[in-house]
Amino acid sequence: MPITEFELIERFFKRKPTRTREIILGIGDDAAVVRAPAGYDTVIAIDMLNAGIHFPPDTAAADIGYKALAVNLSDIAAMGAIPAWFTLALSLPDADEAWLAPFSEGMFALAAQHQVDLIGGDTTRGPLSVTIQIGGWVKPDQYLPRAGAQVGDRIYVSGTLGDAAAGLALLPQQRKDSAALHLVTRLLRPTPRVALGQKLVTIANACIDISDGLTADLGHILQASAVGARIQQSAIPISSALHEAVTNPLEILRYALAGGDDYELCFTVPAAKVPQLENLRNQLDCSITQIGEITQSPGLQWVSVNGDVTRLAPQGFQHF
Amino acid sequence: MPITEFELIERFFKRKPTRTREIILGIGDDAAVVRAPAGYDTVIAIDMLNAGIHFPPDTAAADIGYKALAVNLSDIAAMGAIPAWFTLALSLPDADEAWLAPFSEGMFALAAQHQVDLIGGDTTRGPLSVTIQIGGWVKPDQYLPRAGAQVGDRIYVSGTLGDAAAGLALLPQQRKDSAALHLVTRLLRPTPRVALGQKLVTIANACIDISDGLTADLGHILQASAVGARIQQSAIPISSALHEAVTNPLEILRYALAGGDDYELCFTVPAAKVPQLENLRNQLDCSITQIGEITQSPGLQWVSVNGDVTRLAPQGFQHF
Repeated sequence: MPITEFELIERFFKRKPTRTREIILGIGDDAAVVRAPAGYDTVIAIDMLNAGIHFPPDTAAADIGYKALAVNLSDIAAMGAIPAWFTLALSLPDADEAWLAPFSEGMFALAAQHQVDLIGGDTTRGPLSVTIQIGGWVKPDQYLPRAGAQVGDRIYVSGTLGDAAAGLALLPQQRKDSAALHLVTRLLRPTPRVALGQKLVTIANACIDISDGLTADLGHILQASAVGARIQQSAIPISSALHEAVTNPLEILRYALAGGDDYELCFTVPAAKVPQLENLRNQLDCSITQIGEITQSPGLQWVSVNGDVTRLAPQGFQHF
Repeated sequence: MPITEFELIERFFKRKPTRTREIILGIGDDAAVVRAPAGYDTVIAIDMLNAGIHFPPDTAAADIGYKALAVNLSDIAAMGAIPAWFTLALSLPDADEAWLAPFSEGMFALAAQHQVDLIGGDTTRGPLSVTIQIGGWVKPDQYLPRAGAQVGDRIYVSGTLGDAAAGLALLPQQRKDSAALHLVTRLLRPTPRVALGQKLVTIANACIDISDGLTADLGHILQASAVGARIQQSAIPISSALHEAVTNPLEILRYALAGGDDYELCFTVPAAKVPQLENLRNQLDCSITQIGEITQSPGLQWVSVNGDVTRLAPQGFQHF
C-alpha cells in the first residue's frame, strides 16, 4: 500500500519549529500563521527547481533538498534579510521513501544552519520538481534593492565565480581529483551568503545574488538602477580549484562571467563606505572582492588584463 | 527569437499593486517586501496544480490561471483570513504567448475580485505546472483551525457538494445542456468562500475547505480535534444541476461525499452561536447548510435517508 500524503508529511516533513515565537501555527492546517517580530517587514521569495533543467535527473536526493532551500536562502541573503520560514511544493513521480528520506535530510540540515522552519506545503504526483517559497524579516527600508546603485559605487562580489558552471561541465566525467570534487560541490551545495547580506544592509546601495551569471545579474542591477559598470578582468575572483581543473583561460572566463548557479552576492558600495566594508573582512565567513565600479555611461565595459576596453552583452542562463 | 523570462514577466505578470501600503516592494527584485497591517499576523498557504493530475492537459489557459489562484484563496478562506498577495512558480513547456495571455487574464480577473497582488515568482521551462503561494492577514488568535471542533458543534457546509466531481466526469462528453455546463464551470472556476470565512472567525470553532471530498476533509477536522461526527444524508446540499445531469442517486452521493475540488467550506459552530450564524444568512453570497453534528464517539456516522446508521471511511482524493 502506497504511503499517503498525510503519512508522508508526518514522516518526512513535520519537525518541531525552532522559531516558536514567530511560527504561530505550523504544518498541518489549511495554512500556516506567522508573526513578524515587532517593527519588521516580511521578505518573500520563490524558486523552483525542475529535474533535467536545474539539476541532472540522477542528482542525489540529499543534494536536491539542500539546493532547493539554498537558492531561496540566497534570495533572502541578497535582500539582506533574516530567513525565518519556508513552504515546499513537491511534485514527485511516486512517493518513494528511499528518495524522500535523504531529500528531507539534505533540506533540513541546511534549514537548521539558518534556523528556518518548514511551515507548510503541498505534495503531488508528477514530474520531479521542487518549489520552495521562503519568508524572512527585514527592518523597514533596510532591504538591499537591485535599483539602488549610484555612479561611483564600487562593485564587489563574494566568494569565487564560475565554480558551479565548471562543476556542471565536469559532472559527467565523474573525476575524483579534489579540484573537480570542489567544483561539483559548489554546484550541488552552494553556500547562501546570508550573514554577509545582513551585514551589507547599512553599507551597500544595491545587491543581487548571482544565479544566472555575473554579467546577466550585474546587468539587472545596472538596468534597475539606470547606470553602467566598468569591470576589471584581473580582479575577477577565480578559485584555485577552477584554475587547476580547467586549463583553457577562455573557458574559465566564460564560466566566471556567464555561468550560473554560483549564488554569490554581487553588490555596490559607495566610496565613502568602502572603509566600513573593508573593516568587516575579518568578521566574514567568505571573501569579498572589488571587481569594478558603477559608471554613468550605460552598459558593461570590460577591461581585459592587457587594458583593452570592450563592451559585454549580458549573457546568462536563459529560462526559456 | 523566443521571449525571455524578463520580457515574459513584464508583459504578462507585472501589474500595478492595489495594496500599495502593504506591498513595499513588488515584482522585479530578488524578493518582495510586504508589511502586515499593524496588529495582524500573516497567513501562508501553497498549492500546486500539475497538468494531467489536477486538470486535463487541454484545459483552457484562462481556467488554469483562475483555478490556480482560486484554490489558494480557498485556503485563505478556510483560515478566515484576508487575502493580500501571492507569488507564482510557473513551469511551462515553452513560453507560448498565446497561452500566457489568457492564463494571466484568468488569474488576474480573480485577483482583482479579491484585491490580491502578484508580488513575485519564478518561471522556468518544464512540464506544465502552476504553483501559487498566497499570503493573507488575520488578527492574532482569530484564525479558524482544523483542530477546534467541540462535541455538540453543529457541522455546516457552504454551497452545494459534488458539482466539481460530476463536472470532471462530464467533461469528456462535451455536453451543452445548462446543467452540465454549470457543473463543468464549478470544476474549472470554483468560488473561494473568502467573505464567508472572514465572517466565521468569531463564530466557528473549526473550518476546512473541501478540496479532497467531504468525508476526507471533515475527517481532517475530526482527527485534528479528536472527535467524531454524525452526518444526515438528507441534509447534504445537492445542486439542482447535479440532480438534473446525473440520474443515479448513488453516483450523486459518491460525488458529494468523495469527490474533490468543490472548494466549499466545512465548519463547525457551537450550538450557542448557531443563532448568530443563522442571522448572517442574508448577508452571505452563498448558501450554508447544517449537515450534522460533532460527537464524542470517534469516526464518521452516516444517517441515511431511511434512518440507518453506518460508519463511513474517509475516502477522498489520494495525492499519490
